[in-house]
Amino acid sequence: MYRSNTCGALRASDIGSEVILSGWVHKVRDKGFVVWVDLRDRYGITQLVLDEDRTALELLEKARELGRETVIQAKGQVIERASKNPNIPTGDIEVLVSELTILNKSLLPPFTIEDETDGGEDIRMKYRYLDIRRNPVKNNLIFRHKMSMEVRKYLSDQGFVDVETPYLIKSTPEGARDFLVPSRMNEGQFYALPQSPQTFKQLLMVGGMDKYFQIVKCFRDEDLRADRQPEFTQIDCEMAFVEQEDILNTFEGLTKHLLKEIKGVEIDKFPRMTFDDAMRLYGNDKPDIRFGMVFGELNAVAQHKDFGVFNSAELVVGIAVPGAASYTRKEIDALIDWVKRPQVGAKGMVYVKCNEDGTYKSSVDKFYDEQDLAKWAEVTGAKPGDLICVLSGDANPTRAQLSALRMELANRMGLRKPDEFAPLWVIDFPLLELDEETGTYHAMHHPFTSPKPGQLELLETNPGAVKANAYDLVLNGNEIGGGSIRIHDKETQATMFKHLGFTPEEAKAQFGFLMDAFQYGAPPHGGIAFGLDRLVAILGGQETIRDFIAFPKNNSGRDVMIDAPAHIDQEQLDELHLKLTHTS
Amino acid sequence: MYRSNTCGALRASDIGSEVILSGWVHKVRDKGFVVWVDLRDRYGITQLVLDEDRTALELLEKARELGRETVIQAKGQVIERASKNPNIPTGDIEVLVSELTILNKSLLPPFTIEDETDGGEDIRMKYRYLDIRRNPVKNNLIFRHKMSMEVRKYLSDQGFVDVETPYLIKSTPEGARDFLVPSRMNEGQFYALPQSPQTFKQLLMVGGMDKYFQIVKCFRDEDLRADRQPEFTQIDCEMAFVEQEDILNTFEGLTKHLLKEIKGVEIDKFPRMTFDDAMRLYGNDKPDIRFGMVFGELNAVAQHKDFGVFNSAELVVGIAVPGAASYTRKEIDALIDWVKRPQVGAKGMVYVKCNEDGTYKSSVDKFYDEQDLAKWAEVTGAKPGDLICVLSGDANPTRAQLSALRMELANRMGLRKPDEFAPLWVIDFPLLELDEETGTYHAMHHPFTSPKPGQLELLETNPGAVKANAYDLVLNGNEIGGGSIRIHDKETQATMFKHLGFTPEEAKAQFGFLMDAFQYGAPPHGGIAFGLDRLVAILGGQETIRDFIAFPKNNSGRDVMIDAPAHIDQEQLDELHLKLTHTS
Repeated sequence: MYRSNTCGALRASDIGSEVILSGWVHKVRDKGFVVWVDLRDRYGITQLVLDEDRTALELLEKARELGRETVIQAKGQVIERASKNPNIPTGDIEVLVSELTILNKSLLPPFTIEDETDGGEDIRMKYRYLDIRRNPVKNNLIFRHKMSMEVRKYLSDQGFVDVETPYLIKSTPEGARDFLVPSRMNEGQFYALPQSPQTFKQLLMVGGMDKYFQIVKCFRDEDLRADRQPEFTQIDCEMAFVEQEDILNTFEGLTKHLLKEIKGVEIDKFPRMTFDDAMRLYGNDKPDIRFGMVFGELNAVAQHKDFGVFNSAELVVGIAVPGAASYTRKEIDALIDWVKRPQVGAKGMVYVKCNEDGTYKSSVDKFYDEQDLAKWAEVTGAKPGDLICVLSGDANPTRAQLSALRMELANRMGLRKPDEFAPLWVIDFPLLELDEETGTYHAMHHPFTSPKPGQLELLETNPGAVKANAYDLVLNGNEIGGGSIRIHDKETQATMFKHLGFTPEEAKAQFGFLMDAFQYGAPPHGGIAFGLDRLVAILGGQETIRDFIAFPKNNSGRDVMIDAPAHIDQEQLDELHLKLTHTS
Repeated sequence: MYRSNTCGALRASDIGSEVILSGWVHKVRDKGFVVWVDLRDRYGITQLVLDEDRTALELLEKARELGRETVIQAKGQVIERASKNPNIPTGDIEVLVSELTILNKSLLPPFTIEDETDGGEDIRMKYRYLDIRRNPVKNNLIFRHKMSMEVRKYLSDQGFVDVETPYLIKSTPEGARDFLVPSRMNEGQFYALPQSPQTFKQLLMVGGMDKYFQIVKCFRDEDLRADRQPEFTQIDCEMAFVEQEDILNTFEGLTKHLLKEIKGVEIDKFPRMTFDDAMRLYGNDKPDIRFGMVFGELNAVAQHKDFGVFNSAELVVGIAVPGAASYTRKEIDALIDWVKRPQVGAKGMVYVKCNEDGTYKSSVDKFYDEQDLAKWAEVTGAKPGDLICVLSGDANPTRAQLSALRMELANRMGLRKPDEFAPLWVIDFPLLELDEETGTYHAMHHPFTSPKPGQLELLETNPGAVKANAYDLVLNGNEIGGGSIRIHDKETQATMFKHLGFTPEEAKAQFGFLMDAFQYGAPPHGGIAFGLDRLVAILGGQETIRDFIAFPKNNSGRDVMIDAPAHIDQEQLDELHLKLTHTS
């Protein structure tokens, strides 16, 4: 037996017991006549003590020489601690060591195993197994486990069935790039790893499974932006015989349950906002509504004066930044520089200081009088003491720029509180999205999303205006889930494929099995998928998903710990009937 | 709202309620003046009724023409059924239909959606979404869900943490063939799909995670025997600071819990048997101990007579087949033919009838008298009325042949009862296995398995004799789980790699990260993995895992429903810098 107790278990009530502990040497304090060893495991730290009065000298010597992270087993008696440590649960006791066994030695770790480590991201990733010993990482993984368990329990209690769908499926050019898996047994053919179990969950609905869920890995071979992973985890759900309202209620229930169980936060009813309103009011389809700075559109009150920049703009739009009228010229110039950065892309910024005395001072005083500016204040909701920031130009990019500014200011002003939770349903998404480059439309959600009732005809005349039965769940400015009511009849699905530019042959080759299935009594159905990595990170009060993944990959899709991907043997290539076209 | 109730919900207490049901038309019975429709969903069947007295004629007409598997919505009143059906929970009531909406039509399904269908395996796999509508398949999937939930709950309650390990990892030539995934971003390099999360779970132990579990997909690109799948699901577990005894107790606990919760079967203590005993007594490392026919080794009592076949054999071994002394000559000849089939491979079979009157009649009466045969009966435990079947030859193949015969006879005699459960720990596996073809040793379990204490030196002198801290859990003749105590120090691991024929460079290239990790304070650890597909099938009282997988692949690794794997675009190949060496 390696241990009778863990290093987090012993209390004052255990004083007098003989115990065996195993763990890692966290710290050794050698005061000459007495040596203390902090012994650490997943459950906590227990102080071991050895001293000249009560401990054999060779044992004391052995303890003195223990290096950090050595794995040891210690036997001894639980005794009361002279100077108690109220900061740890085991702080009332220590263990007077009578036997000490070194189970495994350790080299000096490349970074300190402390909550605040001296290791940078790269080295921590290379030695991720050491990083996981640190409380913040360990606790994130345990937190994720708790979340997953809670999700499964809730959905199972609601009658959802966890069904495992296959990982070796078929490539579909639609959407992001697939990871491909050459088949040895079927020469020249490839499997693809699923970007999501979308078609399978729909087939389960056709199969009468009624309520399906799965916590499942998905794969996208995309160029990785910061905080994207080539493999990620989804809470994937689908229901039959439902309308949008049923889905929203069901998964609002799940999210409320998680917020309550995991965070102790109770939220009554989640607000809902149309996609159009979200874009108009926040310039963003995933607005963070924990704070204000709602957009005010100023075309009516700012155009048709002599200011050509505004007059020629499709959209003039501003936000009232609370308490920022006191910004110095230098601070405001810095803001203007910020919006002009290439990543944001604004041409410039007009501002209005709403002074405490009710007067206004703007960067466009030449064109607008106090009365004009008062109207701007009214539209943006600015109060005395606020600063109105105004951008103008083509509607879409201008909204995106002002949204970026709004988020930046909120971050700077500490308005994005990690312990505050503001969920929001964004609904009525457009069905199609115009690819500006090619001038063609593609599905905003995916090609199985159903248009709003009665809007199918619009596909012919004004495809961009067709709204979908599609919805996103937004939490604190992050999309944590998204889904739709699906098309469930073959004709509508064929029409959709046509408008997405598929020939009937292409549609049949790729989704023939789904369209076949729709001929055999497909029920109305819809679903949603949550990004578990992000959901866990947000509920964990953090923004970086990598901190909640045991073995994440870096921005080049590499696992730097195991050094993958890697070159393979020629023999393996031969078996797959493949040849590299270059050798790098 | 598509439904107020499911098709399995309504009871006599609902009589008088107005309800809305949705589901599939299971059957229409048209008696002219009255039409009954069996409406089916996941939860059951409810009878709809329409008749000339109470239903509008056009509604009656509509109902009459409903094809099987049409998806409909029906509104109506719950009424008492004239002739009750005690076989279904809704049998006391029916719904008098006032509104009927066709939600989706269906072609005639290619096989009947009944518990006993007329569809063969191939057609059912192609239309798996229809197959899933059938109760046996649907119930298997729900049963699997219940099992998974119960496993997670039990392990989580025991302090195990569900940690997701990566799917895009590194190829290792050890063991079965990997599925490979070409990396687009890292030209010429490949990921591999995990055959198991073995190294990651060991790294989690190095990381102090202490107790890990995961229900996880694993992948093996092997030529598929019947009832193997290229992707399969494991309950994967690992613990730190444990000895073999701790692991056996913990997972005996899990298995007992499942047997009790899922099957209502209580089993006290699982028996244990060494690998050597299992081979000696059952000729098999996964013996089915639900029945007897234990091997009796007859060398001592059958050799050194004049029977050359036995005298020259390494092993003479028999079983007593209960009650089979009455077999006719023809039946016995058929048994002899059976063992001589190429799949079994015996040269012949000697038999002894133990007559009810205490006399013996054997096929080798020329060489053995009654006294000799009485000794055979003693060794094999044969009683009057039994038939002793004896095989001889080289020990290993002879044991395998007799084991095959034992299982065949048990199947024929109905001794393998699906509702009887006989778990067994097989322990003390050999560390290494001789590859007869190449004359080299490879790891029987995997290269991380630790030898029994003190046996490391034997590796040099008699590698085949080294026993491992490795164990299998066997249930009803199937290996449902297997694991080992791992090596946790770098030196032993290096020695192992050496004996497995790795050069230090190869070991470093493939497992360098693990050996590195072992330098930083790896704790003693061990684990186990259960094959979930098989475990579910056995607890479900069946043998075929395919029946418990939503979307299984066939013996060529194909998903015949979605038609995968498939050819891909040249463009996709180009992006991966790959070329096919043949085109087929």
